[in-house]
Amino acid sequence: MAETLANLVKGLERHGMSGTIEGDASRAIRAVATLEDAGPDEISFLSNPKYEKLLATTRAGAVIVGLKQGVPNGLTVVRTADPYAAVTAMIVALHGYRRHPGGGIHPSAVIDPSAEIGESANIHHGVTIGANARIGQNVVMYPGVYVAARCRIGDNCVLHPNVVLYEDCILGRRVTIHAGSVIGEDGLGYAPVGEKWHKIPQVGIVEIGDDVEIGANCTIDRATLGKTVIGAGSKFSNLIAIGHGTKIGTDCMFVAHVGIAGSVTVGNHVTMAGKVGVAGHLTIGDNAQLAAMAGVMNDIPANTRALGQPAMPMNDAKRVYASLPKLPELRERLRRLEAEVERLRAGVNPNVSSPP
Amino acid sequence: MAETLANLVKGLERHGMSGTIEGDASRAIRAVATLEDAGPDEISFLSNPKYEKLLATTRAGAVIVGLKQGVPNGLTVVRTADPYAAVTAMIVALHGYRRHPGGGIHPSAVIDPSAEIGESANIHHGVTIGANARIGQNVVMYPGVYVAARCRIGDNCVLHPNVVLYEDCILGRRVTIHAGSVIGEDGLGYAPVGEKWHKIPQVGIVEIGDDVEIGANCTIDRATLGKTVIGAGSKFSNLIAIGHGTKIGTDCMFVAHVGIAGSVTVGNHVTMAGKVGVAGHLTIGDNAQLAAMAGVMNDIPANTRALGQPAMPMNDAKRVYASLPKLPELRERLRRLEAEVERLRAGVNPNVSSPP
Amino acid sequence: MAETLANLVKGLERHGMSGTIEGDASRAIRAVATLEDAGPDEISFLSNPKYEKLLATTRAGAVIVGLKQGVPNGLTVVRTADPYAAVTAMIVALHGYRRHPGGGIHPSAVIDPSAEIGESANIHHGVTIGANARIGQNVVMYPGVYVAARCRIGDNCVLHPNVVLYEDCILGRRVTIHAGSVIGEDGLGYAPVGEKWHKIPQVGIVEIGDDVEIGANCTIDRATLGKTVIGAGSKFSNLIAIGHGTKIGTDCMFVAHVGIAGSVTVGNHVTMAGKVGVAGHLTIGDNAQLAAMAGVMNDIPANTRALGQPAMPMNDAKRVYASLPKLPELRERLRRLEAEVERLRAGVNPNVSSPP
Repeated sequence: MAETLANLVKGLERHGMSGTIEGDASRAIRAVATLEDAGPDEISFLSNPKYEKLLATTRAGAVIVGLKQGVPNGLTVVRTADPYAAVTAMIVALHGYRRHPGGGIHPSAVIDPSAEIGESANIHHGVTIGANARIGQNVVMYPGVYVAARCRIGDNCVLHPNVVLYEDCILGRRVTIHAGSVIGEDGLGYAPVGEKWHKIPQVGIVEIGDDVEIGANCTIDRATLGKTVIGAGSKFSNLIAIGHGTKIGTDCMFVAHVGIAGSVTVGNHVTMAGKVGVAGHLTIGDNAQLAAMAGVMNDIPANTRALGQPAMPMNDAKRVYASLPKLPELRERLRRLEAEVERLRAGVNPNVSSPP
Repeated sequence: MAETLANLVKGLERHGMSGTIEGDASRAIRAVATLEDAGPDEISFLSNPKYEKLLATTRAGAVIVGLKQGVPNGLTVVRTADPYAAVTAMIVALHGYRRHPGGGIHPSAVIDPSAEIGESANIHHGVTIGANARIGQNVVMYPGVYVAARCRIGDNCVLHPNVVLYEDCILGRRVTIHAGSVIGEDGLGYAPVGEKWHKIPQVGIVEIGDDVEIGANCTIDRATLGKTVIGAGSKFSNLIAIGHGTKIGTDCMFVAHVGIAGSVTVGNHVTMAGKVGVAGHLTIGDNAQLAAMAGVMNDIPANTRALGQPAMPMNDAKRVYASLPKLPELRERLRRLEAEVERLRAGVNPNVSSPP
Repeated sequence: MAETLANLVKGLERHGMSGTIEGDASRAIRAVATLEDAGPDEISFLSNPKYEKLLATTRAGAVIVGLKQGVPNGLTVVRTADPYAAVTAMIVALHGYRRHPGGGIHPSAVIDPSAEIGESANIHHGVTIGANARIGQNVVMYPGVYVAARCRIGDNCVLHPNVVLYEDCILGRRVTIHAGSVIGEDGLGYAPVGEKWHKIPQVGIVEIGDDVEIGANCTIDRATLGKTVIGAGSKFSNLIAIGHGTKIGTDCMFVAHVGIAGSVTVGNHVTMAGKVGVAGHLTIGDNAQLAAMAGVMNDIPANTRALGQPAMPMNDAKRVYASLPKLPELRERLRRLEAEVERLRAGVNPNVSSPP
């Protein structure tokens, strides 16, 4: 379904954006593609200056660029203040979001008679829904999804294949969970008795807010008591582990392999890059930004960027890690200086021995 | 099902503990909850001093505290030597462990005719059991579980949804495996032939001892030859990877994202915190404790605590990582000292040049 | 199915190898086993010198060793240039590769009528194949596999239980994906709008080349636009995360918990050890080797070995990490030297104060 470039740019206005076309506004655009792949009926974009040189070779029918971006002669461009936001709007306009296969409730799905299912649900074969579960309207459950007893799932949630929800967990509205993620498994709760570990029943739950998206193969422990919470609007990548009783605020973004221990409190709009680890019982303030592989051993104040193992404030850490490669040289300079000082000391006062 | 506080405290005796009530022993207690969440018919506990201030505001009907803990006037408390052990016993008494949905063997489960299944098994729809598998009594297999040919599973094991066991694997008694974990997949075994990798058949197995609990979405490689072993009583959190041929002792505890390469020998009662990595062919001694994110590149002796990348003995590592943020300052101090020594050298003996 | 040692050694010639028997060439060999486990009808091998002492105690009927390896009297050995390659060939000869359970297409598999399935497919119960998918010949799909609409899967692929392929993904020939891995889930693509995250439709795909093997519970994001690519012959261990739009070359080998962000370009024959992390938009050159837990923040040139966080060239990094434990001692030596220099300065010229 092609659109003219003029119409696409006009469509930006619905998102509070505007754009100016330099070139043929009547050109038909069928899809969005990368600068490398785009053809004459596709539009592309330049947001990261690293890829600027591709403007010279792209075959794209048009390219969305910043207001002051230099461009080759003859390239049709759309100038706009935020090319990334504009291309997002055009991907939505031309491609839309995933369309889930329909079919209603498959006869082989195993649904407890006491469960309540809202209207327009798509529940595929191989799905299990436990006793007294309450499922909202227009929910999609792909094959292999397991929803245990007493779970509550809001309207318009999507559970991709093989997602597992243990008993009593609560999902808000418009929650998406990607394939293979597990919500509400027992946390690592054991009381030490000699060298043995006695299991502590994990009787709490997981509660996930509206508009949360969880990546694939994540694991979110149920609380020992009370709740593990993922705040509304937060977005997780894949293979993320959240410990029991941890509470994540709203609008956080966590990259793959993030691991947060139990009883941690994370504020709102916190970002954690890949492989960040956070130790138990800590507090991470609002808007904190943790760099990739940071190992957090202490509370992080709000509005703070941190990096390193153990994590330090970003500016300190950058200086530390810039110095680290110099460490062998520093050792050598120190050794030379000690020898030189010993020579000086001997010259100044040959009868006094060096301090221990 | 409520109990009087007096009865709950009396119940501690069955676990070799005792408690003293200060306040109304006849109060009815229905559940255990956190200090923040507990209401008048719930009991809570204080174990980590970090949460002491919540004693002033909790609405809990009673709180389990240590023998010498100061408490606000009017708060009903149970004093005991180990509040964490006591609350564990009360969670068991009031809540019990997970009750698995029953139903026997679902008619749509695909069970090879040659497989033997013990009495009282609960085998849900979507389960597969391969040829010549031997399954003990009272085993629970949730939907989507796959048990390959010739696996042997002991009595009272629980396999949560979508757990996969590759062929020939052995589980002891009372083993619990949480959703999505995979046991016995091929290890990364290839012989290099030029730049190509030729697959080495992985003909060994995985053997898991009694009372092991494995978290969600873990992966435990089968051995190339022989066995990968997880010793009795060991407890794993989520997203843990164990390499082929590695042997883990008894009563170990591993936190999420631990990764152990192949052919490692881990002793008994070893703890590894989140994201610990262990390189191949190493030996970790009994009772070793590895701090979060430790990167183990050498053998670790028994009874040793280690931290850091590469991992060092704990006391050394703490001093190293306390010094690390000082590194830029040390560089600057060294630079100044070099300049000062140069000035001194020139003053003492202006005709001698500095050593190279 | 036993073979004589003579025949097994003769079989090496088919792989371009040769071996010399010292001992009884007529001995019947039934299996390959480790030095510790092997019995008189089994053959073992010594490749890693760490295990040399086991030659004295092994009960193996024969042991494959290097050309110059010293061996105990009376031990039957096969001498060959590359014992690891030779034992690989013998494992193949005596054990073969996994034989997948057959049975054709299970009647309860849910296959869209528009999907095309090649000859000799084994498609188990609980499998889903979406609209317009094209599946090659002799493909194996274990229970719980989900193949979304329009996927294309080449001949002789094996998808272990609960593998999930999102729509439009492409697998070459002889691709093996282990249990629980997810291919083509959405990447972490959001446009920030104030503190909210607006989802960017992820309309690209994942393309996996011939002879790739992917471990268990991995996650490979589909591209936002274009393709995420895993090049032919590459081998992944478990719990690996590949970000959207990343392109991995041919014949790479990645160990467990490797995480690569989006838009990374990885060359051919690159090895990454356990827990390596690579930040977004970087380029890793051909034949690069990244040590365990390396945190890559900059491009890595071809043929380079790197280690550390942030990753440095191997030789530099080894010196840095060897110096790291000396850091507290360096601080102390610097402190003493400052005091000594202050004493010297005072002695040389007591009226001049130290520089700031």
